[in-house]
Amino acid sequence: MDHDKLLAELNQFLAIPSISTLPAHAQDCRRAAGWLMEQFRALGCPVVELLEGDGHPVVWAESPRIEGKPTVLCYGHYDVQPVDPLDEWVSPPFEPTVRDGKLYARGAVDDKGQVFTLLKAYQSVLGKDGKPPLNVHFIIEGEEECGGRVIFDRLRAEPERTAVDAVIVADMGYYAPGMPAVYTGLRGLCYAEIHVRTLQRDLHSGSYGGVAPNAMETLVRLLADLKSRSGKINIPKLYKAVEPPTKAERKAWKGLPFDEREFLKDEVTGKALVGLKQYSALERTWALPTFEIHGIRGGFTGEGAKTVIPAQAMAKVSLRLVPNQEYEKVGKWLTRAVKDLAPKYAEVEVKLLHGGNPVLCDVSHPAFTVLDEAFEAVAGARTVPVRAGGSIPVVPELQRGGAPVLLTGIGLPDDGLHSPNEKVTVQQLWDGIEVFGKFFTRFAERGAA
Amino acid sequence: MDHDKLLAELNQFLAIPSISTLPAHAQDCRRAAGWLMEQFRALGCPVVELLEGDGHPVVWAESPRIEGKPTVLCYGHYDVQPVDPLDEWVSPPFEPTVRDGKLYARGAVDDKGQVFTLLKAYQSVLGKDGKPPLNVHFIIEGEEECGGRVIFDRLRAEPERTAVDAVIVADMGYYAPGMPAVYTGLRGLCYAEIHVRTLQRDLHSGSYGGVAPNAMETLVRLLADLKSRSGKINIPKLYKAVEPPTKAERKAWKGLPFDEREFLKDEVTGKALVGLKQYSALERTWALPTFEIHGIRGGFTGEGAKTVIPAQAMAKVSLRLVPNQEYEKVGKWLTRAVKDLAPKYAEVEVKLLHGGNPVLCDVSHPAFTVLDEAFEAVAGARTVPVRAGGSIPVVPELQRGGAPVLLTGIGLPDDGLHSPNEKVTVQQLWDGIEVFGKFFTRFAERGAA
Repeated sequence: MDHDKLLAELNQFLAIPSISTLPAHAQDCRRAAGWLMEQFRALGCPVVELLEGDGHPVVWAESPRIEGKPTVLCYGHYDVQPVDPLDEWVSPPFEPTVRDGKLYARGAVDDKGQVFTLLKAYQSVLGKDGKPPLNVHFIIEGEEECGGRVIFDRLRAEPERTAVDAVIVADMGYYAPGMPAVYTGLRGLCYAEIHVRTLQRDLHSGSYGGVAPNAMETLVRLLADLKSRSGKINIPKLYKAVEPPTKAERKAWKGLPFDEREFLKDEVTGKALVGLKQYSALERTWALPTFEIHGIRGGFTGEGAKTVIPAQAMAKVSLRLVPNQEYEKVGKWLTRAVKDLAPKYAEVEVKLLHGGNPVLCDVSHPAFTVLDEAFEAVAGARTVPVRAGGSIPVVPELQRGGAPVLLTGIGLPDDGLHSPNEKVTVQQLWDGIEVFGKFFTRFAERGAA
Repeated sequence: MDHDKLLAELNQFLAIPSISTLPAHAQDCRRAAGWLMEQFRALGCPVVELLEGDGHPVVWAESPRIEGKPTVLCYGHYDVQPVDPLDEWVSPPFEPTVRDGKLYARGAVDDKGQVFTLLKAYQSVLGKDGKPPLNVHFIIEGEEECGGRVIFDRLRAEPERTAVDAVIVADMGYYAPGMPAVYTGLRGLCYAEIHVRTLQRDLHSGSYGGVAPNAMETLVRLLADLKSRSGKINIPKLYKAVEPPTKAERKAWKGLPFDEREFLKDEVTGKALVGLKQYSALERTWALPTFEIHGIRGGFTGEGAKTVIPAQAMAKVSLRLVPNQEYEKVGKWLTRAVKDLAPKYAEVEVKLLHGGNPVLCDVSHPAFTVLDEAFEAVAGARTVPVRAGGSIPVVPELQRGGAPVLLTGIGLPDDGLHSPNEKVTVQQLWDGIEVFGKFFTRFAERGAA
């Protein structure tokens, strides 16, 4: 394949500022979707459509139907994160630039670059008659970064879309350079606001300090009570619902190169790791729930010295969830815990904003062997089974049809997802195209129809 | 005196939007100062000047010198608080309006209306020769509401200004309708920001939740640790430095009409009073220190569900201080306590923004008897000795010359200082003019020269 031509094509896609969370970029999201549709049409897909809903559309494409051959569903997303702080970008986020073998642009690896590897892998396996060796469907959404519901609604309403033989989710990365990975689990998410009111109106701390209940203080105490100093979350039932990692996972994780000091210094950028000391750092980020405070609103935070006793205060918090912790159930437990911990004089409310269920992927299905062999042939290494601490809420929907979901990809740990100077290593792109191409070819031969 | 004419004059003063904290109103502050200077000149004051400094000027005026007679220094301020929320005002804040015997305007009682009573009381005691029965000096500042330093700098540099026989601070109010008051104590203030940093950059809670120290959580725990659930502030030495109220004060306070349920419902607007239960509500607001959290900044508090682990967080806090707790000393104790409570992985910094020392006034000086008699003659009641929970940082400067400081005034508890629809009861203005007039006359006869 002509690498310059490929880069030029990818750069067209990357140049579209399809920031899904900013309403001003709604048309750009449609342009990115339109660009993909053009590609699928140019490759001869007989079905190319927009799945519309209350938000940015999902691009759906189907290869020409090959009877008796398995079907692979390829997932990715064409939307990207916002770009601020803009002044930290060395080259502008929507002017893709190669420096030292790396392609810098917003979306380079998350996830336009990876969508591109699927697209070009598909192109690479088309025969002279324009037909692939198996059936390939694409579902490329535009709301992964903004928590939209279009893809959820469509997959629930149309379960036949996930009635396939394997699903590739190309939105992940290598464990380390040279170490491709498949993900056996993802954490879920339960995001909420905790609202506290103690007074009908703000008061002056001179006149009423010493007797008036301060909503900010009440909230602070509540939040401190929700997690002990050791890192244990004080929500009843939460830990009983943790499904621990398997022996095989624990064994695999122990074998992974992981230097806690380097991790602390280079990635965490702090002076110490925190959390439940009886578990390893990897287990704490991959297989245990968390409770984080993201921000607190209320009272006075401007310049100067306003002496207000706030009547109300709000905290944005979230829990990351691990297998067996469904977010709706955990939301109820959190609400109960907050109400139980709050003093009687306070009105408290927990508003659940957003959720996603945790994911477990059984990697014993033969599709994983096919993927392993493809990586071995191209990158010289089989995949390592790892988990990720983050969440991809759509994965449970993709699992609905019962097909194995291969969470994989060609990102590298230092790609800077969601940050300024997001990049993808160019060679990883070429490897990705080859790996997915080999996967298609071999799965066509070995996958169940 | 012609009440309509008086009101018309006061309304000119009230119509000037001298909001000292807003730079856009700097010229209005000068206009208010100029209005006062015109008044003093019209009354024949031989010395009328602006004391300039780094901020809004102080108006200084002296009556014609009367040898052998005592000197009273009258303090007030011509600046006012901001007016938001503007839409809650029934009539515009700078268009003074009388409704039902009350004059509504920003500054009606805090403090232009009260400055006006001093001015007109002085006018009322001038003889046909334009001379008063004693020496009256005026010091009317323009930075009481914004914490400016001009008056402090001038009084420290020029101690002769407070070398007088009595100081009247007309910036206070009655304990209740019909119950004029003198204030035996004010609380001081130590206002600070607590800054916490745990990471070099914000992290994603999916990738790092469970191991990365969250600055917001660290701050929350620190704040919770600084005050126990019972209301006790966990700063070593703080309570040892509390000078308890005298027996006479405690006795007087017990005799005051105070209904805790009404106070809770009508003033505090909450469901319960908090604080150290072994002390009465009045003692908690007047004679004990407090620690309040005013607001917390950092992380994400916008709409939606951003899953950030904040690298840094900041809380705005303050302590109200009681006699023997100098704010600079308390600032050091707070800093020490924060550093001792913070975990090792956190960088913490305490920035002291603003402070004022607590005040005790010995009300045994004969000047207080004169004031009592004046109130009794005009309002039918002698003053009750109370304290205030708030702070007037300039009072220790006014005490510097050793003269008794009479903290008094004609406000009523429901005047709505700093709030929309601030008002003064018109009859209180007329009473105030008469009370201070009688005070001048009688103090001229009885005060030490």
